[in-house]
Amino acid sequence: MEDKGILIVISGPSGAGKGTVVEEIKKDRTYALSISATTRQPRSYEKDGEHYFFKSVYEFKNMIGGGKLLEWAEFCGNYYGTPRDYVVGKLEEGYNVILEIEVQGALQVKKIYPEAVLVFLIPPNREELKNRLSGRGTEDMETIEKRLKRASEEIELIPEYDYVVVNDEVELAVKRIKEIVDVSKMASARYVDKIRDFK
Amino acid sequence: MEDKGILIVISGPSGAGKGTVVEEIKKDRTYALSISATTRQPRSYEKDGEHYFFKSVYEFKNMIGGGKLLEWAEFCGNYYGTPRDYVVGKLEEGYNVILEIEVQGALQVKKIYPEAVLVFLIPPNREELKNRLSGRGTEDMETIEKRLKRASEEIELIPEYDYVVVNDEVELAVKRIKEIVDVSKMASARYVDKIRDFK
Repeated sequence: MEDKGILIVISGPSGAGKGTVVEEIKKDRTYALSISATTRQPRSYEKDGEHYFFKSVYEFKNMIGGGKLLEWAEFCGNYYGTPRDYVVGKLEEGYNVILEIEVQGALQVKKIYPEAVLVFLIPPNREELKNRLSGRGTEDMETIEKRLKRASEEIELIPEYDYVVVNDEVELAVKRIKEIVDVSKMASARYVDKIRDFK
Repeated sequence: MEDKGILIVISGPSGAGKGTVVEEIKKDRTYALSISATTRQPRSYEKDGEHYFFKSVYEFKNMIGGGKLLEWAEFCGNYYGTPRDYVVGKLEEGYNVILEIEVQGALQVKKIYPEAVLVFLIPPNREELKNRLSGRGTEDMETIEKRLKRASEEIELIPEYDYVVVNDEVELAVKRIKEIVDVSKMASARYVDKIRDFK
């Protein structure tokens, strides 16, 4: 693989089908996984550098301070983040890297790594979103309404994203995202070296 | 066709193969032709509104003044330009419109119609460019050198373009440009109305 890969960030409301779509894309061998850094305790089967990069709070805070994280958040008293060097290394090897993160994290990534391509995944319409949220059959109306409200707030931030992909069918959504990645490789900003060749 | 079309502008040095690529894309029925306005005299077989929109110099200058042209230039004492209303009408009908114009014209279009997608078509490398320029067999070395110099100047402006498409094979170049158009339809800016649907 000669060309640098694309960092693609997928967000979208709960019920948009991000998980399924991302799993499908990851089957493509030109895509590499990102490995998160975390301060939480490893579970018995988890290996450092494979499931997570396990860090002390001190180490993690140093990573934040040193700009070593593309994004990070605190969740249930533990820190989680995306290590910049690992991701950039994979991109330079020519792999595309896909991150599935929520809206605030996605905007952090774009700030630190502006070449990142931000994709917002949405169901075809509000009705379908509501169906998918309630379709799990495990939540009461209040929870569903809360999620819909949150979805509305996230959707407000779509203009910060580069692309919107409608997830009407998983196969089509995957195809669209891969097309976005292919086309992003043709961005003129990536041709600085080639321009030099022509002089 | 429900969605608004994409205005795609193709430029590139002489010898890049723009003509062939554009002809190929125009065969796709989702692409509409643009019809230029001109002040030059119609030839016997030319029909107004089909081959060109024939205008008096007075009318043409009024179009310039009224912002009715996406771009225009003077050539051999005649004016030529791309009528904004005609192009926008086709885009609103859902057609993609492709314009093959030189660098200065392309930059004018982007200024007046920022959603336009600018594609710079290049041969795989300088050697190949030189081969294609001299391959026509009708020009002397001086003409070829002049063209190469002009090509270098045009290539300097690549950063003003959105995408660079390498024309190694016509079929591939056509496929890449169509992918760029498809992906441009997923730009988040086009989802303002759909965002409203989710509220």
